[in-house]
Amino acid sequence: MQNINLIADVMSMTVIAAGLLIGLGALGTAIGFAILGGKFLEGAARQPELTPMLQTKMFIVAGLLDAVPIIGVAIALLLIFANPFLATLGG
Amino acid sequence: MQNINLIADVMSMTVIAAGLLIGLGALGTAIGFAILGGKFLEGAARQPELTPMLQTKMFIVAGLLDAVPIIGVAIALLLIFANPFLATLGG
Amino acid sequence: MQNINLIADVMSMTVIAAGLLIGLGALGTAIGFAILGGKFLEGAARQPELTPMLQTKMFIVAGLLDAVPIIGVAIALLLIFANPFLATLGG
Amino acid sequence: MQNINLIADVMSMTVIAAGLLIGLGALGTAIGFAILGGKFLEGAARQPELTPMLQTKMFIVAGLLDAVPIIGVAIALLLIFANPFLATLGG
Amino acid sequence: MQNINLIADVMSMTVIAAGLLIGLGALGTAIGFAILGGKFLEGAARQPELTPMLQTKMFIVAGLLDAVPIIGVAIALLLIFANPFLATLGG
Amino acid sequence: MQNINLIADVMSMTVIAAGLLIGLGALGTAIGFAILGGKFLEGAARQPELTPMLQTKMFIVAGLLDAVPIIGVAIALLLIFANPFLATLGG
Amino acid sequence: MQNINLIADVMSMTVIAAGLLIGLGALGTAIGFAILGGKFLEGAARQPELTPMLQTKMFIVAGLLDAVPIIGVAIALLLIFANPFLATLGG
Amino acid sequence: MQNINLIADVMSMTVIAAGLLIGLGALGTAIGFAILGGKFLEGAARQPELTPMLQTKMFIVAGLLDAVPIIGVAIALLLIFANPFLATLGG
Amino acid sequence: MQNINLIADVMSMTVIAAGLLIGLGALGTAIGFAILGGKFLEGAARQPELTPMLQTKMFIVAGLLDAVPIIGVAIALLLIFANPFLATLGG
Amino acid sequence: MQNINLIADVMSMTVIAAGLLIGLGALGTAIGFAILGGKFLEGAARQPELTPMLQTKMFIVAGLLDAVPIIGVAIALLLIFANPFLATLGG
Amino acid sequence: MQNINLIADVMSMTVIAAGLLIGLGALGTAIGFAILGGKFLEGAARQPELTPMLQTKMFIVAGLLDAVPIIGVAIALLLIFANPFLATLGG
Amino acid sequence: MQNINLIADVMSMTVIAAGLLIGLGALGTAIGFAILGGKFLEGAARQPELTPMLQTKMFIVAGLLDAVPIIGVAIALLLIFANPFLATLGG
Amino acid sequence: MQNINLIADVMSMTVIAAGLLIGLGALGTAIGFAILGGKFLEGAARQPELTPMLQTKMFIVAGLLDAVPIIGVAIALLLIFANPFLATLGG
Amino acid sequence: MQNINLIADVMSMTVIAAGLLIGLGALGTAIGFAILGGKFLEGAARQPELTPMLQTKMFIVAGLLDAVPIIGVAIALLLIFANPFLATLGG
Repeated sequence: MQNINLIADVMSMTVIAAGLLIGLGALGTAIGFAILGGKFLEGAARQPELTPMLQTKMFIVAGLLDAVPIIGVAIALLLIFANPFLATLGG
Repeated sequence: MQNINLIADVMSMTVIAAGLLIGLGALGTAIGFAILGGKFLEGAARQPELTPMLQTKMFIVAGLLDAVPIIGVAIALLLIFANPFLATLGG
Repeated sequence: MQNINLIADVMSMTVIAAGLLIGLGALGTAIGFAILGGKFLEGAARQPELTPMLQTKMFIVAGLLDAVPIIGVAIALLLIFANPFLATLGG
Repeated sequence: MQNINLIADVMSMTVIAAGLLIGLGALGTAIGFAILGGKFLEGAARQPELTPMLQTKMFIVAGLLDAVPIIGVAIALLLIFANPFLATLGG
Repeated sequence: MQNINLIADVMSMTVIAAGLLIGLGALGTAIGFAILGGKFLEGAARQPELTPMLQTKMFIVAGLLDAVPIIGVAIALLLIFANPFLATLGG
Repeated sequence: MQNINLIADVMSMTVIAAGLLIGLGALGTAIGFAILGGKFLEGAARQPELTPMLQTKMFIVAGLLDAVPIIGVAIALLLIFANPFLATLGG
Repeated sequence: MQNINLIADVMSMTVIAAGLLIGLGALGTAIGFAILGGKFLEGAARQPELTPMLQTKMFIVAGLLDAVPIIGVAIALLLIFANPFLATLGG
Repeated sequence: MQNINLIADVMSMTVIAAGLLIGLGALGTAIGFAILGGKFLEGAARQPELTPMLQTKMFIVAGLLDAVPIIGVAIALLLIFANPFLATLGG
Repeated sequence: MQNINLIADVMSMTVIAAGLLIGLGALGTAIGFAILGGKFLEGAARQPELTPMLQTKMFIVAGLLDAVPIIGVAIALLLIFANPFLATLGG
Repeated sequence: MQNINLIADVMSMTVIAAGLLIGLGALGTAIGFAILGGKFLEGAARQPELTPMLQTKMFIVAGLLDAVPIIGVAIALLLIFANPFLATLGG
Repeated sequence: MQNINLIADVMSMTVIAAGLLIGLGALGTAIGFAILGGKFLEGAARQPELTPMLQTKMFIVAGLLDAVPIIGVAIALLLIFANPFLATLGG
Repeated sequence: MQNINLIADVMSMTVIAAGLLIGLGALGTAIGFAILGGKFLEGAARQPELTPMLQTKMFIVAGLLDAVPIIGVAIALLLIFANPFLATLGG
Repeated sequence: MQNINLIADVMSMTVIAAGLLIGLGALGTAIGFAILGGKFLEGAARQPELTPMLQTKMFIVAGLLDAVPIIGVAIALLLIFANPFLATLGG
Repeated sequence: MQNINLIADVMSMTVIAAGLLIGLGALGTAIGFAILGGKFLEGAARQPELTPMLQTKMFIVAGLLDAVPIIGVAIALLLIFANPFLATLGG
């Protein structure tokens, strides 16, 4: 049966792709939240009475900022635990 | 049947392409929303009475900003779950 | 029939090319709209009475900004769903 | 007939070249229009009475900015739909 | 039994992917917390009476900042200790 | 006849070279006109009465800026449609 | 026994992965603490009476900053001294 | 006759070298004239009465700026249309 | 005995990994201490009476800054002098 | 005669080296003259009465700036038209 | 005796690793001391009466800055003159 | 005679090395003289009466700046016209 | 005797390592002394009466700055003239 | 005699190493002297009466700046004209 060999090839590529998906996303969100959070702390330090409003707004932006990286995490998990290609190949 | 071998090749490339599509998009949107959201928080901290208007405007820009990355996510999902090339090859 | 082998080769390259087309476009538009939208929010926060006019102008610029990336998305979709090369090769 | 093999080689390279042509153009125009449009919005926010004149001028610059990328798009489409090399090889 | 050979291949790729996942995350969080913490110390030095509030806010941002990298760590650990692919291959 | 094989090799390299020629030119002109046009819009917004003169001058600079990229486009077209090397090889 | 050969392959990859894990973490923390500590010294030089409070806060940030790199160190040590993959392969 | 094979090799390298020569030149002149022309427009907007003198001076600088890239274009054309190496090899 | 061959392979990789571990750490600490020490000298030059306190604080930061690189050095030495993998392979 | 084969190898490398020599020189002089000429136009716009003197000085600097790139052009031409190595090999 | 071959392999890798260790350290310390020393000369030029104190402090920082690179030098020398791996292999 | 083959190898490497030597030198001197000359023109525009003195000083710096690149040119010419290695090999 | 072959391999790697050692060191010290010397000339131009003291201090920093690169030079010379590995191999 | 083959290998590597040694040094010194000389011209333009003193100081710094690159040139010449490795191999 040659299939097991092909399954292992697709598995190796899937692991590398998962590393790429989450690694780039982690790098991006870490630097992105640092920039965004720095602005938030600056604003909160200057006008403490506005802090609750600013925090709400920051959460909205945070949701947008995190959206695509979290999708990347979800797809990486899907590729690891329920890979449709491996199902097709009978893995 | 040699087809199964070719299908596995296309699958491996598809996984790498999906990692590229979502990874680059996640990096871009994370840094992009950090820049955009930082400007929004600055504006909201300076003129709190304008915050609702600014937020509406930011959502419009966010829609534009997210458009192409979300298309990339959609195409990556399509390539994973309903790959037309694999259908052609009989996968 | 050796054709099926060649078709798979062109398919693999097409998937990588689609990843390149949309990935680079997503990176560019995400950072581009962040810069443009940041200027728009700044302008709107300084002169709220000009916001409708500025927004109209921003949409015009957005159309120009998005033009080539959207063409890239369209060509990527074309290459995936109606690849003329695969039609030539009988795929 | 060995020609079909060579045609597939040229096709693969053409797809990669199209990705390069439009991808680099999309990256360039996205960032370019962001810089140019940001200056336009700044100018329009400072002197609203000059906006129509500035917009006309921006369109002229936009035409120049878009010229070479659009040529790249056109050549990519030509290479995909009416590739003279494939015609020569009998594809 | 050829399986042991394939298992070793997937193991090698998994180790490299774990290094990529945590390495990129560590680089990102280290620089990200440096930027964020620098802003926090600045704010605390200017307005000491706001320090508790700022610290609470910083923890919220820190949670967002750390989310994706910590997911990356968790997935790296999962790939090392309970790799579903190796289970599939019978490793 | 071995010639057809060599012709295909030169064709593949020509397509890549065309992508390089126009892609780099598109990237350069897009960013170049953004910088130049931004300065033009700034000048026009500050001294509207000088706009016609500035525009004439900008066109002169634009001609210089576009010269080498347009030559690159012309050479790419020449290599695609009337490649002297392919004529030599009898293609 | 072919296993010894596979074990050596996984060992070589593990050593490289350990170098990547700790090397990237060391680079990140060194530059990160330099930025964070510089801000701390600035704050302490301007308001000496706040130094104890600032130092406590810096330690909190330092804990966050060091978390993921230290996890990377721990995983590198684990991979070196108690590699579960080598145990599986019987090494 | 083995010569035809060698001629094709030199041709392929020549096409790539031409792409390198004109591509780098186009990138350089596009960005260079943008910087130079921006300074010219600034000067002309500040002191309109000096514009003719400044334009003459800019042309002198433009001649120097364009010299080496134009030589590159000329050598690329020479390599394409009258390649001395191909003449030597009897192509 | 094939083991000696495998031992040499792991040794070669270990030497490269040691170079990576210490080289990256040396680059990071050299630039990091330059930034941190520059801030310290600035503070000491402005407020000489605070120098002892600032120096104590700098040492604390230096300990944090040096921690991960020193761990990297220790692990490199361990890999060179008491490599557990070589012990396993019987080297 | 094996010499013709070696001559073609040296020719291919010579073409690439010529592309490198002139391409890097063109990139350098284009950006260099843009910086130098920008300073010249600034100076001429501020003190028009000094323009002839400044222009003379700029030419002196231009001669120095162009010296090594022009030598590179000359050596590239020499390698193309009167390559001493090819003469040695009897080409 | 196959050992001499393996010894030469480890030697080659050791030489490259030594170049990496000292080369990166030299680059880092050269730029690091330039930054640190520049701050020291600035401080000494502004407050000459503080020079001895600043110099003492700079030496302390210099010791920290040089620590890891000097360890790198020591390990490189150790690898060259008393390589434990070569001793193991009987070199 | 196998020597002619080795001579051609050394020739190919020599041509690439010459391109590297002069290309890097040309890039460096072009940008270097642009920075240096820009400072000279600034100084001459501010204090015209000091121009002769400044020019003399600039020539001294120019001599230092050009020294190593000109040595590179000389060594490249020597390698091309009087290569001692080729003389040794009897070329 | 196979040893002569291995000696040549180690020699080739040694030459490359020497180029790396001195090349990186030369790049670092050239830029480092430019930064340090620029600060020294600034200080000397502002307070001429402090020049002797500043020069002494600069020499101290220069000694630190040059230390690791000079060690790199020494090790490169040692590797070229008294390579212990070649002595071991009997070269 | 197999030695001539090995000598040619070491020669090829030596030429590349010489290009690396002098090329990096030329790039570094060109940019370094531009920075240093620019500071010198600034200082001389501001305080003409200090020019002789500043020039002497600049020469001292220039000697330090040039030291390692000139050593690189010397070692490159030594490797070309009196290569000890080639003497060992009997070249």
